[in-house]
Amino acid sequence: MRIIEIREATVPLDSQLRNAFIDFSQMTISIVAILTDAVRAGRRVVGYGFNSNGRYAQGGILRERLIPRIMAAAPEELIDETGANLDPVKIWNRMMSNEKPGGHGDRAVAAAALDMAVWDAVAKVAGQPLWRLLAERYNGGAYDDKVLVYPGGGYYYPGKGLGQLKDEMRGYRDQGYKVVKMKIGGADLAADVERIEAVLEVVGDGQCLAVDANGRFDLETAIAYAEAISRYDLFWYEEPGDPLDYGLNAELAERYPGSIATGENLFSLQELSNLVRYGGMRPERDWIQLDPALAYGLTEYLRCLDMLDGHGWPRRRLIPHGGHQLALNMAAGLQLGGAESYPLVFQPFGGFADDIPIEGGYTRPHDTPGIGIELKAAMYKELKALGEP
Amino acid sequence: MRIIEIREATVPLDSQLRNAFIDFSQMTISIVAILTDAVRAGRRVVGYGFNSNGRYAQGGILRERLIPRIMAAAPEELIDETGANLDPVKIWNRMMSNEKPGGHGDRAVAAAALDMAVWDAVAKVAGQPLWRLLAERYNGGAYDDKVLVYPGGGYYYPGKGLGQLKDEMRGYRDQGYKVVKMKIGGADLAADVERIEAVLEVVGDGQCLAVDANGRFDLETAIAYAEAISRYDLFWYEEPGDPLDYGLNAELAERYPGSIATGENLFSLQELSNLVRYGGMRPERDWIQLDPALAYGLTEYLRCLDMLDGHGWPRRRLIPHGGHQLALNMAAGLQLGGAESYPLVFQPFGGFADDIPIEGGYTRPHDTPGIGIELKAAMYKELKALGEP
Repeated sequence: MRIIEIREATVPLDSQLRNAFIDFSQMTISIVAILTDAVRAGRRVVGYGFNSNGRYAQGGILRERLIPRIMAAAPEELIDETGANLDPVKIWNRMMSNEKPGGHGDRAVAAAALDMAVWDAVAKVAGQPLWRLLAERYNGGAYDDKVLVYPGGGYYYPGKGLGQLKDEMRGYRDQGYKVVKMKIGGADLAADVERIEAVLEVVGDGQCLAVDANGRFDLETAIAYAEAISRYDLFWYEEPGDPLDYGLNAELAERYPGSIATGENLFSLQELSNLVRYGGMRPERDWIQLDPALAYGLTEYLRCLDMLDGHGWPRRRLIPHGGHQLALNMAAGLQLGGAESYPLVFQPFGGFADDIPIEGGYTRPHDTPGIGIELKAAMYKELKALGEP
Repeated sequence: MRIIEIREATVPLDSQLRNAFIDFSQMTISIVAILTDAVRAGRRVVGYGFNSNGRYAQGGILRERLIPRIMAAAPEELIDETGANLDPVKIWNRMMSNEKPGGHGDRAVAAAALDMAVWDAVAKVAGQPLWRLLAERYNGGAYDDKVLVYPGGGYYYPGKGLGQLKDEMRGYRDQGYKVVKMKIGGADLAADVERIEAVLEVVGDGQCLAVDANGRFDLETAIAYAEAISRYDLFWYEEPGDPLDYGLNAELAERYPGSIATGENLFSLQELSNLVRYGGMRPERDWIQLDPALAYGLTEYLRCLDMLDGHGWPRRRLIPHGGHQLALNMAAGLQLGGAESYPLVFQPFGGFADDIPIEGGYTRPHDTPGIGIELKAAMYKELKALGEP
């Protein structure tokens, strides 16, 4: 069992979106294909991966650092003790050799794309959906047969009015979602309150609406929004301040009775540990959104689960950012709280399998080997072109 | 006044070095040249920059994100209110547009290389050495005419024994350095104590020796080393634990009576703020080593100085990592505590002007416009080839 070749390419995520911080029209991501010498059902096993949206493609780091290190290793240094499958931890350690501690940013994104492809290959070699492999290896065999999903939506874009915002949210509900999410902080507080109340007219209960400030607020603004939205009892108030301003988060947590969610812009075990130590996050109420497809992959996420367990955080308080099938597999197989979804945006990488519906706010895991990338036709087309010459 | 073109290239730092964490034989850095339409002394002003060693070249991020954003801006959006010079803050904000908060790693390194070239151009357009421009703009005109420098050395390499380590340190003293630095943590504690005592035989006083663990230790090991080295009263004990493990640093600071130095693996104002808040660092005793050529440049460093000032940190407690002329200019013009130096390693980018000596542990700033890159012939040769077609 060995890796024959690792390929990567940059693809655009053409989009007119804007959140409180960035314009996505120039956004790119990296896609990765790992070609192995394993054959299952008459076909070569190819592992596919990509990084989540928001931090750009990472071709330079993949080509110059991570991929050459893996390809320079002897095949036996990358396989597990059975000799019959790849070992994600060994591969991770190899690609991160000669990297200094700290500086968790673009490197974490590059590693995440590659690590996703490794896990896809591992599950395919094992002949299992990834969620089932995770359940068996890391969760005593237990898994969820349905997963809470919510659409990351409610973006600002030029000319978008309250009517269109409500139509967007009605669309999500018609697709089967229950909890929806909208951006705040791209307008002033009064306008955002109007937007929130408009969406509440569609979804009814505040527990069906999350709001996301994308790290934009200073403490004063974060508190002003907290005071204004407390009365709605929202599902969560996401990323109020800079993701590394643990002090702001802690002060806000003392004043905001509702749930806070954050973590999509943390990129490592170390940064998440600091959020838990210093950020005032409340395990019975708040949500952690670390994205495995941005933050060194599932391999690092498993280390994070151990750390969180040591701090009394139940896995149910984790809902990964990103709207990708990796997070869905992890939510099912590790029994997390749920997964984000991007049914409309970041196509073709947002959303889940084409033929598995959303019902009552939940979706179901797939039943083919791997992450299930082949079940999302538009996305698979791009990855297949990379993996099959 | 406008930028005509920004060029970048990757160059190797061929080296057989090893510290406690990485092997430098594959290390690369990015070099940058900013060609302007300004002419001084009959020549086109070209600003030169590069990133510090240890985090690799960042050509992908420079080519795909930072440089195109600057070149897409109208020239008047990048110049200061006089219209006669570039504005580093405006350029910085432009290159960082559409970047999300958090994730301070390779992006910070890429931005640092580009920002260095901007400041070199700005000082050249102003006809001043950078240190003098900094003194006038940010230090009430005051500056230092000599700067404490110490060589970052004492690396491990295969076959290097105590005799060679002592010879290396004698060499630094012969060159005019007073304080020297050596790596620890690449051997076991007993062997490192032997190495420390061997170097002390050369330099005499513990205040002439700093030791650097490169972020390798867990708390237990960090404390064991602290207990073993306390008796030597060393100049500092550098980066004992993971750079983001503020809790480890704080616990160690309570137990180690000597000076702790850290910060070379922090990459942003936010991370440095967290070190100050949570790391237990003592402004009367400890040292902050944030490297402007890794962490978003001098432009971000000036913001860090404001933050540190608000927390009661005197500028004299800052000695930037990196061994480059940018840090030397900053130390002189902003009256910092000193600057690292790499007289032997990371060539041709380590060290200062060829013709300015080290005397009694100090060096002097240069007197030509800009950072002084033209005064280090081997380095200038590489940059000139990039900047002059």
